[in-house]
Amino acid sequence: MRATHFLLFFATAALSAGAAAEEGMWTFDNPPLRKIESQYHFDPSADWLAHVEHAALRISEGCSGAFVSADGLAITNQHCVTDCLAEISTAKQDYVAGGFYAPTQDQEQRCPSMELDQLIAAEDVTPQVQAALDGKTDDGFAAALRDISSKLESECTGGDAHAWNCQVVSLYHGGEYALYKFRRYVDVRMVFAPESAVADFGGDPDNFNFPRYALDVALLRAYDRSQPVHADFLHFAPRDPEAGELVFTAGNPGNTERNWTVAELESLRDQQLIPSLLYYTELRGVLEQFAHEGSEQRRLAYANLTDVDNLLKDEQGQLLALQDRTQMARKVVDEAALRDWVMADPARRARYGDPWSVIADAETAGRSLLTRYRMLEQAWGFESRLFDSARMLLRAAAEREKPNSRRLPEYRDANLPAVEQTLLSPVPTSVDYEELMLGWSLTKLRAALGEDDPLVRRVLGDHTPEQVARAAVEGTKVDSLAYRRTLWYTDFEDLAMNADPMLQLALAVDQDARAVRKQYEEQVQTVLRRQGEVISQARFARDGLAGYPDATFTLRLSYGQVRGWDEQRQPVPPFTRLAGLYARATGNEPFALPPRWLEARPRLNGDTALDYVTTNDIVGGNSGSPVVDREGDMVGLVFDGNIHSLGGDFWYDGDSNRAVALDNSALLTALRQVYGMGALADELVTGHRPPAISVATGRTGR
Amino acid sequence: MRATHFLLFFATAALSAGAAAEEGMWTFDNPPLRKIESQYHFDPSADWLAHVEHAALRISEGCSGAFVSADGLAITNQHCVTDCLAEISTAKQDYVAGGFYAPTQDQEQRCPSMELDQLIAAEDVTPQVQAALDGKTDDGFAAALRDISSKLESECTGGDAHAWNCQVVSLYHGGEYALYKFRRYVDVRMVFAPESAVADFGGDPDNFNFPRYALDVALLRAYDRSQPVHADFLHFAPRDPEAGELVFTAGNPGNTERNWTVAELESLRDQQLIPSLLYYTELRGVLEQFAHEGSEQRRLAYANLTDVDNLLKDEQGQLLALQDRTQMARKVVDEAALRDWVMADPARRARYGDPWSVIADAETAGRSLLTRYRMLEQAWGFESRLFDSARMLLRAAAEREKPNSRRLPEYRDANLPAVEQTLLSPVPTSVDYEELMLGWSLTKLRAALGEDDPLVRRVLGDHTPEQVARAAVEGTKVDSLAYRRTLWYTDFEDLAMNADPMLQLALAVDQDARAVRKQYEEQVQTVLRRQGEVISQARFARDGLAGYPDATFTLRLSYGQVRGWDEQRQPVPPFTRLAGLYARATGNEPFALPPRWLEARPRLNGDTALDYVTTNDIVGGNSGSPVVDREGDMVGLVFDGNIHSLGGDFWYDGDSNRAVALDNSALLTALRQVYGMGALADELVTGHRPPAISVATGRTGR
Repeated sequence: MRATHFLLFFATAALSAGAAAEEGMWTFDNPPLRKIESQYHFDPSADWLAHVEHAALRISEGCSGAFVSADGLAITNQHCVTDCLAEISTAKQDYVAGGFYAPTQDQEQRCPSMELDQLIAAEDVTPQVQAALDGKTDDGFAAALRDISSKLESECTGGDAHAWNCQVVSLYHGGEYALYKFRRYVDVRMVFAPESAVADFGGDPDNFNFPRYALDVALLRAYDRSQPVHADFLHFAPRDPEAGELVFTAGNPGNTERNWTVAELESLRDQQLIPSLLYYTELRGVLEQFAHEGSEQRRLAYANLTDVDNLLKDEQGQLLALQDRTQMARKVVDEAALRDWVMADPARRARYGDPWSVIADAETAGRSLLTRYRMLEQAWGFESRLFDSARMLLRAAAEREKPNSRRLPEYRDANLPAVEQTLLSPVPTSVDYEELMLGWSLTKLRAALGEDDPLVRRVLGDHTPEQVARAAVEGTKVDSLAYRRTLWYTDFEDLAMNADPMLQLALAVDQDARAVRKQYEEQVQTVLRRQGEVISQARFARDGLAGYPDATFTLRLSYGQVRGWDEQRQPVPPFTRLAGLYARATGNEPFALPPRWLEARPRLNGDTALDYVTTNDIVGGNSGSPVVDREGDMVGLVFDGNIHSLGGDFWYDGDSNRAVALDNSALLTALRQVYGMGALADELVTGHRPPAISVATGRTGR
Repeated sequence: MRATHFLLFFATAALSAGAAAEEGMWTFDNPPLRKIESQYHFDPSADWLAHVEHAALRISEGCSGAFVSADGLAITNQHCVTDCLAEISTAKQDYVAGGFYAPTQDQEQRCPSMELDQLIAAEDVTPQVQAALDGKTDDGFAAALRDISSKLESECTGGDAHAWNCQVVSLYHGGEYALYKFRRYVDVRMVFAPESAVADFGGDPDNFNFPRYALDVALLRAYDRSQPVHADFLHFAPRDPEAGELVFTAGNPGNTERNWTVAELESLRDQQLIPSLLYYTELRGVLEQFAHEGSEQRRLAYANLTDVDNLLKDEQGQLLALQDRTQMARKVVDEAALRDWVMADPARRARYGDPWSVIADAETAGRSLLTRYRMLEQAWGFESRLFDSARMLLRAAAEREKPNSRRLPEYRDANLPAVEQTLLSPVPTSVDYEELMLGWSLTKLRAALGEDDPLVRRVLGDHTPEQVARAAVEGTKVDSLAYRRTLWYTDFEDLAMNADPMLQLALAVDQDARAVRKQYEEQVQTVLRRQGEVISQARFARDGLAGYPDATFTLRLSYGQVRGWDEQRQPVPPFTRLAGLYARATGNEPFALPPRWLEARPRLNGDTALDYVTTNDIVGGNSGSPVVDREGDMVGLVFDGNIHSLGGDFWYDGDSNRAVALDNSALLTALRQVYGMGALADELVTGHRPPAISVATGRTGR
């Protein structure tokens, strides 16, 4: 009894101190079992953990998902599959706007460049990696890490890089290295996606906001040798979670900087975020106006515009967080304490040095490299799919001639299938759109590096950016899949002689791009990573290991509860309902419902739960994460965070940071009563594809 | 000899300590005579000062200029008259792109909304103003200042607000109040402006940069009762200044914040600049793409795009300066020293209080008001000339019903002629362009205030921003000058009943806009101004008066020398020459020369000086300032600053801050040898309009 009372008290105390107890993106091998038990009296078993871990998916577009049937059905967000929807769309059929529905298996359409990764095993390879890195200086460190990673990854795929994706992941800033082995699914077909008007209801105004009324979901099916795959999957519970209920998410948070120094955060704020915000904000304006020019232009711009809006809100949220002087002051104090602890003892000083100063110096060096690095290597100056293809062809050819371990990491043997998959996908490009994007981005290149920069002179000559873009886009044959396939098997020397203007443009930039990448990686990124490790080691020596690693776009478990929050002293309830969707529908974008939804209104129950918020600690990359209950069943689908979640890159504030999820009831109701896809709803609920499906048997639920 | 040696030594010491000796934007009644004498052995006489002061002009578009002939000829920059050039252009004749040339007087075209102000007298009214303000609290302070200003200004114009513009100017943050009396010229006609391709050669890439190759000049003529006016003017010297030569500028620096507290600078950096940069960067993207749609769209977008580019570079320069931790640290130290000085003595504490904390609190209050203030009162949410006209008509009608001193300042009797001038100018508007701008800005209104804001709901209802914009723009008659004239004489009550959709839109916003303006003025602006005064008083008590006031867009004198600077350890020479212009001309925008210039090339001397830099301390508003030599003659025309000059809002860094000016030789050469406007060149050199001008007598100089 005493023990129980103590635990209860502890749980209450943790709650009232804010939900910091719910902080964390935990690896599946180190879940905070004691914290969960103490707060929620639930102790996930090893089986429970393995079940959730293996059903979860990582999606190539930077999202998460899960298998939800024994027949390879996978769930994620509609906003995670818009690239695929745009790629399979035609001038006649716009699957982004109109939605996609495959009532029968033969109507499921393959996504040309989508990949699902299922985590099969995670092996601790810290000893092997640290042995390889031992005594390496900054210069040799990156190469050594690359070599050992390449070796471990090659062994892991066992020569079958089509079936397996292996990746050495640095956790705790190099405190731990893990070799993740993923089963790779590259034959992924679209099964269902609602109209963007309802998937993205509220559009940019509602993005990162709540109350929210969006059905942001898509269903895919993974195939292997033309048959649906049979993998571990989550049961899709036909119920709503309750307010206060313990829920988990299993997903791939992309990137956090919770361990960064003040200098790194300041550099992010001043040197990185602001120029990025300005670049993408101007691009947004260009795309907006282009989209106004006609329906085809609108279709072309849509996917990019959605991505840009999402990125902008994310970066604005980060910037706002980094302008929060209270939180920054906490970081300063925390950092000073650790630094003082190191400096107070000569042995510690000798061991750790002064990583904070080294990082600050590297950030200063980075300042003068960053613009060039972004413009050339990250291709901000060359916003064009055709340019990307041309560069990829050139680099793949050049890198293949080198020993595997000396290559740029993305062209190592283990990654070449992904490069090939991207390059040899039948992605239609629009000449107008490519010219627009390339022309605009070349003006940004000139503005950033200056009219008199030798590379700018070489690229533009006496021409305008628009002229250079027109000549490259209209003259290239890289838009042809057959031609790309031919080039994929061409040697570098022959490629370099090829007069194709897009290849020549990529070639003209490549030496400079590689040079600044090398500088930036060596003088900045490697230094930050290594010194970050030193700080992590010092922190570990002082505090012991009691935390979770920063996000790495690999699988993590978070726990939390369904709960609203107080916004400017007003409570925000945790659930929205279908009635609210209709109340908010003005008939005009982004608040216009598609005809099906207007027509279905009389037969829908307005009380049906639509979206809800939880205290789970998630960030970008978690989109499409299943929300899982104590039974290990799926009870929702994460598709966003509220505005306060954007500070989650740097810290977790349980008072206001919320994940936003789609309720299962809303999806089942939509499939059965709006889309006439009852069979698909049945597959979700039963976990098995009904035996004989045809258009005629698709129940409408009326 | 000893004295001389001392002075020489002093001058050398001042120079080697950086050119801070040349810092300052001095009022003509307090020039730094001793500093000028000690550094340059020149002592401007009272006559010299009066001569320069009275020839200088302030231009309504936010620029400076000067009279340069006895017959009302005035000089400024082409970029200061693009609004006029766009207004007098037609679909057939684009004077921005093609330039404007009036070889005869009857071809000079009136600028519909341009005003030149010539400073006639500046009276110290500090005692009267301080008496009126004495003992006023924050709430009453603004009203009292408004009342006394209104009274003094009314008396000053003597009932003839058409001929006189009077303005109470707060100098030294209220340490001094001056009543400026300007002769107002509203009949201003375009005489000459070169093609934008040469006026703005290098476009946005070269803006705020040097070496520079632009002929950014325009000539206007002021008329009174259909005759050219005869006013004080500067002799236009047919010579180049020499490197190292002492030069002055007389112009109207718009705004500086050299006296601001750290809290104010941080608020500017984080709360004000970044959202403004993002707003205008997106607008830039929209305008860029609109301009690509056709030549008419290009013409419509051009003036706005140029303004936006200029604003963006300025704000980016400010942001970069405010991110300079060294300079900011100096501000922190300077502020702490003054604060400690105040706090160290109970009497001083009682007298001054803690203005720094009060300012910091006001900045916090401002944070929650600023977005609404900008969107509604500054009409960021309503980017439309027609909306501006509608609001102006409504407000003028409402304000005229109040006693003069209770009105919004811009609608006091002294200012009504300017309002009338703006409203009743024949400015053609384009329906497409107005719809584009209003529609876009309404999306920003919604994004900034949120879909659920009551005002947003009221303005948009169930419509999209585009629909609301279309209905207002296509339904309004406010685009008709005749209709505006009718409405100008209509009572508020009748206006409010008028169903014109643009009037109704303006009416729907006006209460909220006025309310947030009142809050922002009272809780933020007034507090900052008053507390800024307290800080100024404390500084004065400690240091005595030895400085210059922050810029106020009123006439100031700066001194400096023709001098290059070192850019990343490479010297930048002070002059560029015509040969350099041709070398840089790629044939493509923004480096494409107009046909006249290509044709004229063989007969031009490539050694002719084109642009040059000086150490004068100038900021935005100084565009069009004459560069004046010891003789009081004009030897150049300021049109820009280099990139380092953008930190000039907060401090003057003599090592790198440079003004960029057009050389006189370039202008004379252009008029005579490129444009066949020899008579105009003669008027410049002789100071008199040649007696009988006709097209036939215009010498071509060939």
